[in-house]
Amino acid sequence: MDVVHYVNGKLVNEKETVINIFDLGLIRAYAVFDYVRLYNGKFFHLNDHLERLQNSAHKMKIILPISINDIHDIAHLLLEKNPQIDAGMRFIITGGLVQSDLISPSSISSLIILFHPLKSLPNYNDSNSIKVITTKLSRIFPDVKSTNYTSAILALKEAYIKNYDDALYINDKNEILEGTTSNIFFFKNKTLITADSSDILKGITRKVVLKLAEGNFPIEFRPLNISEIENCEEAFLTASNKQILSVSMIDDKIIGNGLAGENTKKLQFMFNKYLEKYFFDVKQNIKTTI
Amino acid sequence: MDVVHYVNGKLVNEKETVINIFDLGLIRAYAVFDYVRLYNGKFFHLNDHLERLQNSAHKMKIILPISINDIHDIAHLLLEKNPQIDAGMRFIITGGLVQSDLISPSSISSLIILFHPLKSLPNYNDSNSIKVITTKLSRIFPDVKSTNYTSAILALKEAYIKNYDDALYINDKNEILEGTTSNIFFFKNKTLITADSSDILKGITRKVVLKLAEGNFPIEFRPLNISEIENCEEAFLTASNKQILSVSMIDDKIIGNGLAGENTKKLQFMFNKYLEKYFFDVKQNIKTTI
Repeated sequence: MDVVHYVNGKLVNEKETVINIFDLGLIRAYAVFDYVRLYNGKFFHLNDHLERLQNSAHKMKIILPISINDIHDIAHLLLEKNPQIDAGMRFIITGGLVQSDLISPSSISSLIILFHPLKSLPNYNDSNSIKVITTKLSRIFPDVKSTNYTSAILALKEAYIKNYDDALYINDKNEILEGTTSNIFFFKNKTLITADSSDILKGITRKVVLKLAEGNFPIEFRPLNISEIENCEEAFLTASNKQILSVSMIDDKIIGNGLAGENTKKLQFMFNKYLEKYFFDVKQNIKTTI
Repeated sequence: MDVVHYVNGKLVNEKETVINIFDLGLIRAYAVFDYVRLYNGKFFHLNDHLERLQNSAHKMKIILPISINDIHDIAHLLLEKNPQIDAGMRFIITGGLVQSDLISPSSISSLIILFHPLKSLPNYNDSNSIKVITTKLSRIFPDVKSTNYTSAILALKEAYIKNYDDALYINDKNEILEGTTSNIFFFKNKTLITADSSDILKGITRKVVLKLAEGNFPIEFRPLNISEIENCEEAFLTASNKQILSVSMIDDKIIGNGLAGENTKKLQFMFNKYLEKYFFDVKQNIKTTI
């Protein structure tokens, strides 16, 4: 069955997901987006994602074409039209059709909502651990979820060539900031360490993990320097589509014993419990606390 | 009469200039481009622009979908289809349709060639001088002509709000690098000064101007510090669509006497002569030297 998407006011099928080339999202890469995960046909933290989408648009001075409440309603309508239960939904807002000077935004932004079925749930259980490289590439406007993923694509290409799975952005001080499409956490001296600044994009999964960790582990908000990697006990990535994914190798350094660590597994367990509770609460119409 | 464009192997009219939303040029802003100016229905330095397009694609690891020679031929075909004589042609190469992981490029890039009629020749003669602001915003991969113009759009918005015409990117050392869609030159102590590094995009008009200036003015290749603005005699921008455009005010500092300077006018005169010679040589099938 055809997947249904939403493009500028219309529900469309796969073949109709086209956009005018003179849209600033293409011609000038002027666009923000967000991606929300669906489990069993239900949104996970949709409001957090829509709030971040609104913030991204605001920071990029892109005006929402309709209100966030209306976008919320369209998201639910789109969900009804798509029977797949495990999926992601991508919200893209661009600067709209370019004006005659070929650079200034139109007064009407474009809104695209894409539905991405997931063939199967990614299996990020404790036997799964990935290898990552570090890269001096960086994102422009790192605290905004813009569509500008050139650095990520180049970093991933480099990682794949080296037979690694992903890449971490490091800054000029050799501090590890974030992954190409994820946040990075470390355990060092049993303390959970993660960057927290305008140099990273603060993930929704990251927020959940931090809330779950509270009271269970001491937390330090700072980027880890690459010189500290060998003293780390554990490392993991967080992202909507990755949940909590163990990292067992960074460049040529093996983390801990090269397997997913105990504390990472503990957080994965807590995250799974949280997912259960979250969707139970959604069903009961209870407002979740995180 | 409808303007004709080229999209992925087809000549199309205005209404058909659409592209799949799953193209990496939109979904991940993964695309390079170039823009060449046409005077009286003839390309100005087309080969230089196509060479730079090829370099941009190479640096971004985007594979050309067809050879540069074939792109050259399509450019001429498109020109035949469009009777307008004063125009620009924009070549965009994107990473193509995204693969199932929603971030990796396809093996087939997209090629778009857009024809932009110019209503009239911009009148950048010596009575014309603009005001610009400086901005700490910067471009990512500055030596590549990628479609990532978010910084430019934000900088221009800021300039327009302040009733200025354009913006100049400055780095952390307060050095002036380039304009949002142009290169910047200064005259100080009768010496022509312009940045020359991987921090700027080297324009084709910049190259012509430097060649014309050779032997006529001493030339220094370095970015000017903003502290030096008040000691400057003249300033001007260069770009395919701006030619040589005098700058008479940077932030709150007036350059020289606030009018286009003598040396800028001299270079404008030389540039106009060069244009005449260039197109005379094209007509006579003589290879021009710059």
